[in-house]
Amino acid sequence: MPEHAISPTRREDYPEWYQQVVRAADLAEQSPVRGCMVIKPHGYAIWERMQGILDRAFKATGHQNAYFPLFIPVSYLEQEAKHVEGFAKECAVVTHHRLELAPDGRLVPAGKLEEPLVVRPTSETIIGAMYAKWIQSWRDLPVLINQWANVVRWEMRPRLFLRTAEFLWQEGHTAHATAAEAVEETLRILDIYAAFAEEHLAMPVVKGPKPSAERFPGAVDTYSIEAMMQDGRALQAGTSHFLGQNFARAQGIKFADTTGAEAFCWTTSWGVSTRLIGALVMTHSDDDGLVLPPRIAPTQIVILPIHRTPEERAQVLAASRQLEARLHAERSADEQLRVRIDTRDMRGGDKVWQHVKQGVPLRVEIGPRDLAAGVVSVCRRDRPPKERVSLPLDGFAAQAPALLAEIQQGLFERAAAFRAARTVTVDSQADLVARFREDGAAEAGQGGFVRAHVADDPAVAAVCDPLKVTVRCIPMDGDDEPGRCIITGQPVARRSILARAY
Amino acid sequence: MPEHAISPTRREDYPEWYQQVVRAADLAEQSPVRGCMVIKPHGYAIWERMQGILDRAFKATGHQNAYFPLFIPVSYLEQEAKHVEGFAKECAVVTHHRLELAPDGRLVPAGKLEEPLVVRPTSETIIGAMYAKWIQSWRDLPVLINQWANVVRWEMRPRLFLRTAEFLWQEGHTAHATAAEAVEETLRILDIYAAFAEEHLAMPVVKGPKPSAERFPGAVDTYSIEAMMQDGRALQAGTSHFLGQNFARAQGIKFADTTGAEAFCWTTSWGVSTRLIGALVMTHSDDDGLVLPPRIAPTQIVILPIHRTPEERAQVLAASRQLEARLHAERSADEQLRVRIDTRDMRGGDKVWQHVKQGVPLRVEIGPRDLAAGVVSVCRRDRPPKERVSLPLDGFAAQAPALLAEIQQGLFERAAAFRAARTVTVDSQADLVARFREDGAAEAGQGGFVRAHVADDPAVAAVCDPLKVTVRCIPMDGDDEPGRCIITGQPVARRSILARAY
Repeated sequence: MPEHAISPTRREDYPEWYQQVVRAADLAEQSPVRGCMVIKPHGYAIWERMQGILDRAFKATGHQNAYFPLFIPVSYLEQEAKHVEGFAKECAVVTHHRLELAPDGRLVPAGKLEEPLVVRPTSETIIGAMYAKWIQSWRDLPVLINQWANVVRWEMRPRLFLRTAEFLWQEGHTAHATAAEAVEETLRILDIYAAFAEEHLAMPVVKGPKPSAERFPGAVDTYSIEAMMQDGRALQAGTSHFLGQNFARAQGIKFADTTGAEAFCWTTSWGVSTRLIGALVMTHSDDDGLVLPPRIAPTQIVILPIHRTPEERAQVLAASRQLEARLHAERSADEQLRVRIDTRDMRGGDKVWQHVKQGVPLRVEIGPRDLAAGVVSVCRRDRPPKERVSLPLDGFAAQAPALLAEIQQGLFERAAAFRAARTVTVDSQADLVARFREDGAAEAGQGGFVRAHVADDPAVAAVCDPLKVTVRCIPMDGDDEPGRCIITGQPVARRSILARAY
Repeated sequence: MPEHAISPTRREDYPEWYQQVVRAADLAEQSPVRGCMVIKPHGYAIWERMQGILDRAFKATGHQNAYFPLFIPVSYLEQEAKHVEGFAKECAVVTHHRLELAPDGRLVPAGKLEEPLVVRPTSETIIGAMYAKWIQSWRDLPVLINQWANVVRWEMRPRLFLRTAEFLWQEGHTAHATAAEAVEETLRILDIYAAFAEEHLAMPVVKGPKPSAERFPGAVDTYSIEAMMQDGRALQAGTSHFLGQNFARAQGIKFADTTGAEAFCWTTSWGVSTRLIGALVMTHSDDDGLVLPPRIAPTQIVILPIHRTPEERAQVLAASRQLEARLHAERSADEQLRVRIDTRDMRGGDKVWQHVKQGVPLRVEIGPRDLAAGVVSVCRRDRPPKERVSLPLDGFAAQAPALLAEIQQGLFERAAAFRAARTVTVDSQADLVARFREDGAAEAGQGGFVRAHVADDPAVAAVCDPLKVTVRCIPMDGDDEPGRCIITGQPVARRSILARAY
């Protein structure tokens, strides 16, 4: 057994460590279709948990789900000038609607379409076209719709979950009578995303508006939540866009107000994607593999029956099932603990390491000697893999929810401490450059987040670009003070977060 | 007010009645993209209910969800000869991966792909390619995976839900060590589909194998569930395929058995789609619009507060909320009654008709006079729209689950009686032809299901084709007797169901 289950370690080769964690946890793999991943059952189960939690939050705030076409006519994409600029360079184009046998025996595209179709990279244009039909009067507003869907953005350098040609996401699209309501919606969703990231994924995030160069193509304002990965890089984990009247004007989304006067709607859009799984992996995992916060883990507690003889097997299995039933009884049906008894016929050590690598928060082993002593042997995934404690079997079920809550809280605090240790405030251009100079930043944990006053000005990008640094967002929470841009000297109300990013 | 809320009626113009029911219930509409529909919130809420119920049934039988790529290389499609024949004629082909500005200012496809990609019409080939990598030994079997996804089959004559270029579905793909296990799986899923259709959609179905000409391209056996619509036509509502070793051989899905010998796997695939919503609409709806069985209805009970003065409003709203709370308390959180209070500011009559057209099973009106008398006014969607009964307010919540169950059961029985009345046993070719002769079958309810002994022989299709009739399946349930094919005279073990179909 090597010292760690994952090779290389984070310190040795962070990008490769990430790939190996994803592989060892059996979350996903590359498919034969360039840039498209296969999300395997364990990875998909995490996505289903994410979907369930977010879907409930969307519905609780008045949103409904619907489904819009996969294909977008090229002419629709052209309606909003910045939008097409943003997406035309990386889209899958459907040009034919059948295949024909060529004389050489190969299948070739046939039935050319009059107008090519783009596989949706995002759905503002096609959804906006429908809203223009649906919305007539102020009585029709607000329209609050979300869609769970696949989207495609051609990627030349794909990475599992983080950057894939096809990915799964949700995209909310809302229309409102006033700018104030649309801004309120944009921020309400940003708060839902931030709460989801922090409370369920145990992933601390910074939320705030992005500088103009980083906005969604066609948006007036883009807000994001930004998390810090264990290599000190930022990962944009969700975005919420205030689109103003840009799309409404381009697409004719109009309504008659209470006086009968016609006005353009104010719209928003917002989304999170399977990229969140990548963020989750990189926030908590260690050199033994995936670490899952209990609230998002598909399996929270795995019970491993340990036995040699058939008699032992019967006894230990019965005790395991009884423990499972007691754990289930701890919570009502809709929030039942997620427990699995692993009875597979394989080497005990392999089994243990599989659960370690898959990130199961609590592992409970029950053998004949434990039973005789009335205890179970408990291992926490947030502790070293060989650390274990014996706990009374009788009291374990009642104790389990608190143990899981403690792990959840501990993971959040660890991530928050990591981020705090790698966030510095910088008040000069020289310090900014020093922080991200090539050699230093190559080490894991270097770089991190830099808090600095910077203006929304191309001159800032001119300094940041060579450092491969971007302004991530202007944090909305917490105290901050006005100052002068460390690059242009312009007055700035608050500090921004600058970082290298995924 | 016309006599009926939907015009034309079923009798006047059945296909147009269907479109109008879908529109009046606000389920879906055509999008600007040819053949692709927009599933509106009410339609999508029905799909979410279907997904939830089926997903639990799949998981309870050991299946896991995963996600495979949207795109399939053309060469993959070619691997199974019949499969490519079946799907090449109607697929969306991606040939380029970006758009470029042409000199005339228009966007044109650019970045031609080396190998064109097909938007999945079904995923046997891409999933099989992964299974070939994942499966090594008998220990890896069975593989029981399902995917919820969108698929595209180019349609020249689209109809909402029934036949659309893009549709949503689930596709299960399993691999087994023996033929017997794969057949068992095929039939287990068929049973899940049939139970779902009958118990949740209140839609009686016939289940059985299809004749060879109607099989899924590449399957050894295709089993289907067939329902009868109110125009007497059959609708295939779900299919489960035993693929034998056809795909396993084509794709190299092999395993080492317990002796170490290498063998090809036995695979299955199975699916139901948003077409089920079309089947649901056509099974129960009437000339006033959609009728939803309570178990699938997104809203089971709508409460309409009726008031004129602000005082009445306060009083009636308070009673409505109290009733809602009592209805919720009738069941535990995970199976709570789905209740909505409609407080929208619109004409009462419009509101009532909207709920009728949307198919809400129970409508409860509460006005000041009802309150004074301690009653509510209750309308059942399975009864004429103007029929109403006064029930004691105090006891209503306790009574509601039984009322909903009664409606559910009544709808199933009505549909079963309708089907029984339009199913005939026929023992000669002349009677078969007479049953489906052009003029008679044009009337709604004519035609229906014909039970007849027919051989799996091209001669049968030669007689059926001009009648626009197909052999739907050979029913597995119920007693039947052997006989001779009414067309070829060959001995046949059981009667088949013949019908015109969607």
